[in-house]
Parts: sequence; structure tokens; C-alpha cells
Amino acid sequence: MSTTPYDEGDPVYALHRGGKLETVSTAPLRNRDDLSLAYTPGVARVCTTIAENPDTVWDLTWKSHVVAVVTDGSAVLGLGDIGPAAALPVMEGKAVLFKEFGGIDAVPICLDARTVEDIVETVVRLAPAFGGINLEDISAPRCFEVERLLQERLDIPVFHDDQHGTAVVVLAALRNAALLTGRTLGDLRAVVSGAGAAGVAVTTILREAGIGDITVADRGGVLHEGRENLTSVKSRLASETNEGGHTGSLVQALRGADVFIGVSGGSVPEEAIAAMAADSIVFALANPHPEVHPDVAGRYARVVATGRSDYPNQINNVLAFPGIFRGALAVRASSVTEGMKLAAAEALAAVVADELSEDLVVPSPFDPRVAPAVAAAVSAAARRDGVARL
Amino acid sequence: MSTTPYDEGDPVYALHRGGKLETVSTAPLRNRDDLSLAYTPGVARVCTTIAENPDTVWDLTWKSHVVAVVTDGSAVLGLGDIGPAAALPVMEGKAVLFKEFGGIDAVPICLDARTVEDIVETVVRLAPAFGGINLEDISAPRCFEVERLLQERLDIPVFHDDQHGTAVVVLAALRNAALLTGRTLGDLRAVVSGAGAAGVAVTTILREAGIGDITVADRGGVLHEGRENLTSVKSRLASETNEGGHTGSLVQALRGADVFIGVSGGSVPEEAIAAMAADSIVFALANPHPEVHPDVAGRYARVVATGRSDYPNQINNVLAFPGIFRGALAVRASSVTEGMKLAAAEALAAVVADELSEDLVVPSPFDPRVAPAVAAAVSAAARRDGVARL
Repeated sequence: MSTTPYDEGDPVYALHRGGKLETVSTAPLRNRDDLSLAYTPGVARVCTTIAENPDTVWDLTWKSHVVAVVTDGSAVLGLGDIGPAAALPVMEGKAVLFKEFGGIDAVPICLDARTVEDIVETVVRLAPAFGGINLEDISAPRCFEVERLLQERLDIPVFHDDQHGTAVVVLAALRNAALLTGRTLGDLRAVVSGAGAAGVAVTTILREAGIGDITVADRGGVLHEGRENLTSVKSRLASETNEGGHTGSLVQALRGADVFIGVSGGSVPEEAIAAMAADSIVFALANPHPEVHPDVAGRYARVVATGRSDYPNQINNVLAFPGIFRGALAVRASSVTEGMKLAAAEALAAVVADELSEDLVVPSPFDPRVAPAVAAAVSAAARRDGVARL
Repeated sequence: MSTTPYDEGDPVYALHRGGKLETVSTAPLRNRDDLSLAYTPGVARVCTTIAENPDTVWDLTWKSHVVAVVTDGSAVLGLGDIGPAAALPVMEGKAVLFKEFGGIDAVPICLDARTVEDIVETVVRLAPAFGGINLEDISAPRCFEVERLLQERLDIPVFHDDQHGTAVVVLAALRNAALLTGRTLGDLRAVVSGAGAAGVAVTTILREAGIGDITVADRGGVLHEGRENLTSVKSRLASETNEGGHTGSLVQALRGADVFIGVSGGSVPEEAIAAMAADSIVFALANPHPEVHPDVAGRYARVVATGRSDYPNQINNVLAFPGIFRGALAVRASSVTEGMKLAAAEALAAVVADELSEDLVVPSPFDPRVAPAVAAAVSAAARRDGVARL
């Protein structure tokens, strides 16, 4: 009978009716006296103080604990380019995670803007009331420029979670997998499948962390300096990676490799996993369909991780971004440095370092130790890197 | 000892530490099952539904109950152009009022943008995640173009509260003052002092409501068709008002007038009030310093109103905007029509029509009947005017 184009009884839709977020006043408003403190005439003095002492905006407003979750809806989950309005449920969900896991307030901002310039200009203009910018689900390669230009122009942290959230958690898991299997990061030869937002960031952080040898593959095979028609981002990756000089397919590169990291959405045949080195480490992170099924990978690999909550070792960004922003905002950082990301990965890995097993190389998303540990490490790194205001 | 540039013990600053607003999740997040409903993988189906059926964004997100409170910080309270960051405490306060009085969630957006074009472009781009746009403290005459262009380009309500919130409450108070003194609106000759955001909107709504004769004055005296160097907005006002053909000063125009409405921040001499008609009505709304002190005005006028909470008849926008947005959002209106504003004023006046006295021509801001009454009238008017989606 209903003309509603979804099943209202379905628990997912029932939960989403009316959205998942609200704004709440932390100031009482019972009477005229309350009103004259929180609003006119009292508020005028607060405005004047900020106008005369700009740094007091961090004390006297919610700026110190609120983040804008910004998307253009161009690369939402595995759904692709569904536009800003259809992306809103994910951004609300992200805001919910920010609050629940990091104690950070967050506001979904879904932009009807598509060029790098329009996105950057818009975010620069709306930034004054926010303490940080979390970029979300913006497609590659635009996301790289958007992030770089925004961080150049803003004095608050700009963090593209699809890149760096994933990279931080992958590095943490890999640290622990190496520890568990008696190897250092420098011992490992890794193959990354995917050269989009996550693939580029994972490769970058693994290089910074000292992985011995990294090969990156996209749909056209391994990135190497002889390949033509590469985007500038991929061309840079090709020149910075692939010390082994591989030139063929992903499957060829996997032969004898220690680590596979899939962030591609593609698939990898069982034989390729079987041909990896002993004690191999397989992170098949495509969601909901991992590049290789974890049960299949488990026949050959020592450690298997996925993006799924129904298998062990879930590589979930929620292990990183709440603590990273909490740590950055706690010291009013002006940016998120590479040192802060590396520190986040180290702290995240350390949370379970004493309880490591093949099925536990990263903590559960619900482990209450995670966000405080990550936040403390990130704050300290921000101070070391000279980007902390406090 | 402290280097804090404000008195931390002062109750106003104590209240403002950390701001006045937070975001709160309305979805439980206790375990992996909750996470898979509110976030991935469950949320993907919700996104797909919205992508395929765009109207469902009103059902399945917070869009139906969230408003952006947008400013550029160019005309904040009586403080003038203090910029976007210093304006944030007012915008947070406004968001608090939206929630407390209207049950509407609201997000402060303080724009680092100054031209009409930049403000409009920015708001159009960030609009998809909001159900309405409340413009705030944007200086005249830019505010008129900003509002007009935004409403032209967006299919959600755009409402500049400094204009229309004030206008609605003034009209409501004037209706009741006329009723109390046995006159119709058509009987009244009114003088409006101030031709900025509030003055223009008050004049417009009074004309629509059928006031007999309106004269508008700015710092240069009465607006009339013979005056030179008027802005286009003032030139239009001059041609649409002043049926009496006044040409001199504000004081001259007040001679024999029934109604004075001050929205100028200037001052009016006692003699000018004394020279008004019998049973005169004086709304001296400059805040915190009324154009004429209410005690002085009370010596001559039958009804006196101000913007202050410590005198009777407070003309406070909070009597209008929460109910107007609540009513508009309840029917998912695509704009705020003149009919909706007039209906809001009528409903607001009606709340106290049975208890009228010289000291009670508008309800108290804390009267719980106000927002529901205004909202119901605004929803009905939106339907009549054909701008309601529901």
C-alpha cells in the first residue's frame, strides 16, 4: 500500500528515519537571565574579546572540539559517485563515530561542488567555525590536491580519512604482524594492490615506516618507471617504489612476497596467495568483498586481516580518526604531520602488543583503550613537530 | 597572574568556555551489530535509496530538522564588522535558541567570504545536507541580494532573520497594539526610522499587512522620490512609501504620526514623541540603547515596546524564527513566502489576543504556546502558497 521506496520495517531503514544526529545546547536556557548570558546582551562581550584576541575563539566557542566532515559524494563506500545528498547517511554515521569513539563533535557537510578549486574554496570559506576538517569519500586523484591545497591554506588539521585513516591502521596491523612473526618492517617485501586514495596513502606511510621493498599495482599491473600514461600521482609512486624492478602483473609481483595489501576492490586468485613467501601476511581490505576470501587466504597466510567485522583483525578506520583528531584538537594543532600519523600507528599497535596472536594484530573498534592512546601519542607528536598551539 | 585576556570568573565567560553546543548521536553504538546498522555495511543501502529516490533524503537523514545558521560576521549585533570567527558565539547562541525554542537542530556556519557572489556560491554548495538556511548578521545592502539569489537557487527555505524575524514580531505587536487601541492597521500612519536590513523588511511587511501610510527615514532624513544618491533599495522604498509626501527630518515626520518604529540605533528627542498623535505606539528597538528611553516614551505613548528583556513588550526575534522554521520544515517547504511571514505574525499576535494590555502586546519569549502556534500557521500558509512538499 505504501509508496515509500524502501522497506520501513527493515531495521537499517527504521534506524535511519530522521537521521542519526542532533545538536544539543550545553548552556541552560530556563529564563531571561540565562538568555542574557548565552545570547544578547552577554554574548556581545564574548564576541568583542574574540575580535580583539583571535586565539580566544578556541576557548570561548565549540571550535576546539568540532570537526567538519566534508564530502562531495564522489566516491562513497563502494558505491562510487552518488552525489552529496545520498552521501549524507555516511557523513552522519562518521559524525556519530567521531562523537562516540573520540568525544569529538562533528558536522556533516555535503558539497554540491566537483572541481578541486570549488571544493577547496568552499572549505576555506566555511573553516572559521571548525577546529578541523575531515575529508571523506572524495575520489582520487582529486582528493590528493584537495587535501594538499586545503592544508596549505588553513591553520587547522586537514585529514582525508580514506587515505590516512586506512594507512595508519594498516601500518599498525603490519607492525604487529611483523612482531608476531619475528620480522622487522625492513625485512618485508610488500605488494599493494590499488593506487587510489587508500593505496597511495598506505604506500606512503609504509615507506616512511621503513618497509624494505614495496610494489604497487593498479588494474594495469605493476607501477614501474617504464609504464606509460600514468597520472602524476602514479608516476611519482612508480619512481619511489618497486626497488625489485617488477614489471608484470599483480600475480607475478606476489610471487615470494611477504605482504599483500589489497585496497583495490579487485580480486586475487588463490594460487597467487599460495605462491607468497612463508609466514605471509594478507590484508584483503576491499569491503564487503575482500580481494581474497579470508578463509581461502588463511590456508596459506600466517596473518589475515580484512575490513569486515565478522572476521578477526578488522582494519577499521574508526581505530584511527577519532583518536587522531582528539589528539590534534587537544593541542590545537595547525595540521596533521606525517610524524603524527606514524605516532598514531605506533600507539594503536602498542595497545595489543602484549596480547598478540594471529587473530589479534589490531584492537577491536570497541576497545576503550584505543582513542586515548592514539590521542596522547598524536598530541605529543604535534608538539615535537612544532604544530601544536598548546 | 593569568594571561587570559578576559575575566574567567565573569559568569558570561564562564558559560562560554568550550562553547554552547555539541552534536549528539541518536543512534545507539554499543556493539558491532549497532555499527553495522548505523555505518557500514548497512548504511550503503540507505545511500543507494537516496541516490535512486532523491526525496527520501528528507526521511532518512537529519535534513528534515537541521538548519545552517550562516553569517559572514559583517553586522554582528551592534558590534558591526567583527569577522566570521568573532561572530561564532552569536551563531552558537542562535543554534541554542533554535533547539530550545523550536526543537530544530542548527549548525553555525561562519564564512570567510565577503562578496555577495562568494557568499551565495558557498551557501549553495553546502546546502545539500541542510533543510533550511538562516542568514544572520550580514550587513545591508548585501543581505538583500544574498537572500534573493539564494532563494532563487535553492529549494529549501532561506530566511534572513535580521530582516524577517524582526518584521514578523513588529507586525504582531502592532496588530495587537491597534486592536487594544481600537484601530485597524489601515487607520495607522507609521514612521520607520532605519533603512537597513530590519527597516526594509519591517516596511515591506507593514505595507503587505495594509498599514495606511508609512514614512521611512534614514540618517539623511525622510526617504522620498526627490532625494538623490539613494541606493537602489532605498530608492525603491522611497517610491513605494511616503504617501503623505514628507520631505524633511524624522522629527518632522513624527508630528501627528500614530506609530514610531525605531530600528536604527539612532535617538529620537522627547519632543518628537510628545508631538505624535493621541494613543501613539512607540517601538524603540535599538539594543541595548532604545531610540527613546521607554520611561520617557511612556509619558506620551499608549503602547511602548523595546528590544530589551527588562521592560514590557520585548520585540525579540526568538518569538518568530523557531516557529517559522519548525513550520516550514514540518511540510518540507521549498521557500519562506510572504504569506508564511504574515501568517506567522498573525499567529504570534493571536497567542495573547485575549489578554491584551498596554504592557502585553507580544508574548514572553518563554511562553510555550508561541512556537507551536507560529509553526502551525506557517505550515498551513506554505500549503496554501504551494511551496509545501508534504
